[in-house]
Amino acid sequence: MLRGLTYAGVGAVESDEQFIQLAAKYGFQAVDLDPSNLVERLGLEGTNELLQQNGIVLGAIGLPVEWRTTDEEFRAGLVKLTKLAAAASVLGCTACCTYILPSTDHNPAHFMAVATRRLRICAQVLGAYNIRLALEFVGPHHLRSRWKHPFIWTPAQTLDWMAAIAERNVGLLYDAYHWYTNGLTISDIRQLRADQIVHVHINDAPAVPVHEVLDNGRVYPGEGVIDLAGFLQGLHSIGYEGVVAQEILTATQPTDATESLMQRSRAGFDKVFGAAGLGT
Amino acid sequence: MLRGLTYAGVGAVESDEQFIQLAAKYGFQAVDLDPSNLVERLGLEGTNELLQQNGIVLGAIGLPVEWRTTDEEFRAGLVKLTKLAAAASVLGCTACCTYILPSTDHNPAHFMAVATRRLRICAQVLGAYNIRLALEFVGPHHLRSRWKHPFIWTPAQTLDWMAAIAERNVGLLYDAYHWYTNGLTISDIRQLRADQIVHVHINDAPAVPVHEVLDNGRVYPGEGVIDLAGFLQGLHSIGYEGVVAQEILTATQPTDATESLMQRSRAGFDKVFGAAGLGT
Amino acid sequence: MLRGLTYAGVGAVESDEQFIQLAAKYGFQAVDLDPSNLVERLGLEGTNELLQQNGIVLGAIGLPVEWRTTDEEFRAGLVKLTKLAAAASVLGCTACCTYILPSTDHNPAHFMAVATRRLRICAQVLGAYNIRLALEFVGPHHLRSRWKHPFIWTPAQTLDWMAAIAERNVGLLYDAYHWYTNGLTISDIRQLRADQIVHVHINDAPAVPVHEVLDNGRVYPGEGVIDLAGFLQGLHSIGYEGVVAQEILTATQPTDATESLMQRSRAGFDKVFGAAGLGT
Amino acid sequence: MLRGLTYAGVGAVESDEQFIQLAAKYGFQAVDLDPSNLVERLGLEGTNELLQQNGIVLGAIGLPVEWRTTDEEFRAGLVKLTKLAAAASVLGCTACCTYILPSTDHNPAHFMAVATRRLRICAQVLGAYNIRLALEFVGPHHLRSRWKHPFIWTPAQTLDWMAAIAERNVGLLYDAYHWYTNGLTISDIRQLRADQIVHVHINDAPAVPVHEVLDNGRVYPGEGVIDLAGFLQGLHSIGYEGVVAQEILTATQPTDATESLMQRSRAGFDKVFGAAGLGT
Repeated sequence: MLRGLTYAGVGAVESDEQFIQLAAKYGFQAVDLDPSNLVERLGLEGTNELLQQNGIVLGAIGLPVEWRTTDEEFRAGLVKLTKLAAAASVLGCTACCTYILPSTDHNPAHFMAVATRRLRICAQVLGAYNIRLALEFVGPHHLRSRWKHPFIWTPAQTLDWMAAIAERNVGLLYDAYHWYTNGLTISDIRQLRADQIVHVHINDAPAVPVHEVLDNGRVYPGEGVIDLAGFLQGLHSIGYEGVVAQEILTATQPTDATESLMQRSRAGFDKVFGAAGLGT
Repeated sequence: MLRGLTYAGVGAVESDEQFIQLAAKYGFQAVDLDPSNLVERLGLEGTNELLQQNGIVLGAIGLPVEWRTTDEEFRAGLVKLTKLAAAASVLGCTACCTYILPSTDHNPAHFMAVATRRLRICAQVLGAYNIRLALEFVGPHHLRSRWKHPFIWTPAQTLDWMAAIAERNVGLLYDAYHWYTNGLTISDIRQLRADQIVHVHINDAPAVPVHEVLDNGRVYPGEGVIDLAGFLQGLHSIGYEGVVAQEILTATQPTDATESLMQRSRAGFDKVFGAAGLGT
Repeated sequence: MLRGLTYAGVGAVESDEQFIQLAAKYGFQAVDLDPSNLVERLGLEGTNELLQQNGIVLGAIGLPVEWRTTDEEFRAGLVKLTKLAAAASVLGCTACCTYILPSTDHNPAHFMAVATRRLRICAQVLGAYNIRLALEFVGPHHLRSRWKHPFIWTPAQTLDWMAAIAERNVGLLYDAYHWYTNGLTISDIRQLRADQIVHVHINDAPAVPVHEVLDNGRVYPGEGVIDLAGFLQGLHSIGYEGVVAQEILTATQPTDATESLMQRSRAGFDKVFGAAGLGT
Repeated sequence: MLRGLTYAGVGAVESDEQFIQLAAKYGFQAVDLDPSNLVERLGLEGTNELLQQNGIVLGAIGLPVEWRTTDEEFRAGLVKLTKLAAAASVLGCTACCTYILPSTDHNPAHFMAVATRRLRICAQVLGAYNIRLALEFVGPHHLRSRWKHPFIWTPAQTLDWMAAIAERNVGLLYDAYHWYTNGLTISDIRQLRADQIVHVHINDAPAVPVHEVLDNGRVYPGEGVIDLAGFLQGLHSIGYEGVVAQEILTATQPTDATESLMQRSRAGFDKVFGAAGLGT
């Protein structure tokens, strides 16, 4: 598994270049970012060089398509998607992520039908570039009733949705926080095949009752109560070899210096990977 | 358009043979029935002869697959489906119908995902036999809140579902009752293409407020308040040439003699087709 | 049916604007062109105004994706496709065309598999913009053995390919020349449904044996030996209401003045539509 | 990996029961057979008991659908398929195999289109029963020109076909003989993901030039020239954990006693698995 970072949890980084350099400095192997700015400034080759010089791979891009609102907005995103996928593909990226809110103000069945069609188109386009689409189920209880109707929030429901989307390059984004807030165990991970997981997020939860855990109340790996050693062991046991990217969503952005947050992140990874018996 | 009958509205018919003969006698051109019993008794050839001798075509079969409950029940239906489709295909039938309840006790988004996968499989199997799958949206207001969560009930939602199912041989079952209870007009029909409609049901509604109309409170064509002449004109204007089958769902089965109900049905068809300028 | 023009057969037109104006002047209702240049100069609104002021619709765009060579070239086309589809969609265009060469130097089975995947992706993207993909079978005998292995060239084969592509928005481009060189009759057209045809090309063939007819040896409608009246009657009888666009592929571009070629085109349309009983 | 047997190579076994018992006696863990006869005699429960008492799993069934000829024959197979899949699924079988002849008398491109549609339907039906469809590429050179036109015979071509079929439950049947006759190496296997392989056949080739190797000229594992240790190491290294089933196709059925052939098979497996470092 590759240790990765997202921008969530690293504070006010100055630039993508700095992000990549600091990720390398603190022992990470992957970053999740939108490479568009880098490519505009450095070109594809320059960006590739930057990544290679730092020993960093591009873990995942976010889906630049709005599939939750109107057809107009959806279509506007498709132009962006082909451009981004073309760039990401040349940079060696093979994963593109989007998340699923667990409730909705739309008629949920109709929204599911519309979203199925739209995400299939996204998956097809991404597939042309050998990129997989990762669907992130979102577990925190407060979001399940935040909007009028229930949508979906479990990995089992998301696997069923993948079967409805019916494209070969769609899989799960498995986030430790959503695993935890769904009340799942290592055995739930062990029942999956590695190829069903496209990307992984890691983070920790405070010591409050699980149904009170807030989506933007996350803490650094090893600083909370989630059994992250078990989480990583489960993923390792089924043969998952992709990126495990830290994503610390918080109500306000941390004000600590970036290097300090990087160090904290590294310490967290060392602790939980160590506890899992997966390297120093 | 072919004038057709279903068993709903013709009382206690003794046998499929009698149904076919009476349909012919009263000027109908199609019947909707499950041909399995006929085929068992008469063979495929004998059944074909019976139909041809009476100038009757097999309008539509019902989908013999339970796609609303467990995977086990769904799978059990697939064996039946291949057998039925094989027989129906030889008998010249090209339509297979199922209806969509407008509310559900399941998580509606998850149920939509599961049902999308299941109906796609049914459509694929039917497609192998050149049979199209007709999805019937169901409009009556009381059913929209009969179960815990809303599902879908409009033709627009059903077209979006068809796009999610993404099989070329799936279309609408357009029922006059559901058109009426959705508050739709001729112009809504005119916006469709004929190939989006696989099958049509005709029936009438009593003179009560539209939101009080009960699904099993239907009356014979021309005996109620639905603008069936407009309904038929709309279908004709877009080039629909398939079956228009009477379906009179009632709380209790009519006790009138079958021939009397046949005569009443014929009179209803004559009245509304006549008003639409579509033949005697 | 709408009378349409392509650039093939109208000589050295100066600009898209002139093409649209002359099409209108000579009684045509549609033009097939790539709107990109117009949109760049006039904007989407300005282009729409130009079309509307001339009473001209955008009949079809060509598929800007190379699906016959490498994955790299294919991918490069996808970015173009989303941009073009977005523009064409706003301009009211609902058809996008590509043609199928009847022989190939590739392993034909493998090429069919690869092309199936690629055209499905194109169809999905076009579908997001409510545009249909038209596949043009190509009949002339000399092309069937021009490259090493046979590919496909009949409408029946193309319909089977459409079933393999399995997208709802894919249909035939039915070209009179390819109908003729396939040795087909009106009854072959009558067996189709209108929704299986996305676009139509019209042109005529010289009086040489059918197996000697050259793909770029076409003449103007009514100046050759194809039964174009029958062709149009067949299309009309099944309810085809789309564009019938002239496409005169010749070995060298005609040197006559554009207005003279426009007049000749108009005369040809008048003759064959008249003979078909479809207006002056 | 599970050591498995097919009927090809075990001589004149008396019954499925005997096959299962002898497979167990000689240290095998899986058999490939059509369970229909067993189920008819013993019922599903009885068959399951027989398998469990002998510690044998049902490795794979053959696809009972003729997808290479007419639509009529294809359809007839679909009824069989649902029944067989229903039984196999209850017996724990998750793989269904079919092979691809490397040349054809059909127009190869058209045949590829038709076969794509048909195998997609088969895959959908199998998917309803959680069974995967394994496509076996066939390498021997003599078969590549046995019929008029080339079809496909490499794993790369077959992966492209899988992308055209576009169902999530379709993968490769990887046969050592076809790997060898395609001139492939361990590194070709290492470039695959385990989930792309549904089933594996093992067998050996005589010491003749590779382009002279006959499809029905196979010898027992370890008795020929194929690097089966490398083959197994490659599969092991990518995480393949499924069945490796012996399939010895020969011009005439071996006349040795079944127990003697079982012993020979076992010795062959011991030799090549041992050489691969994969157990005794």
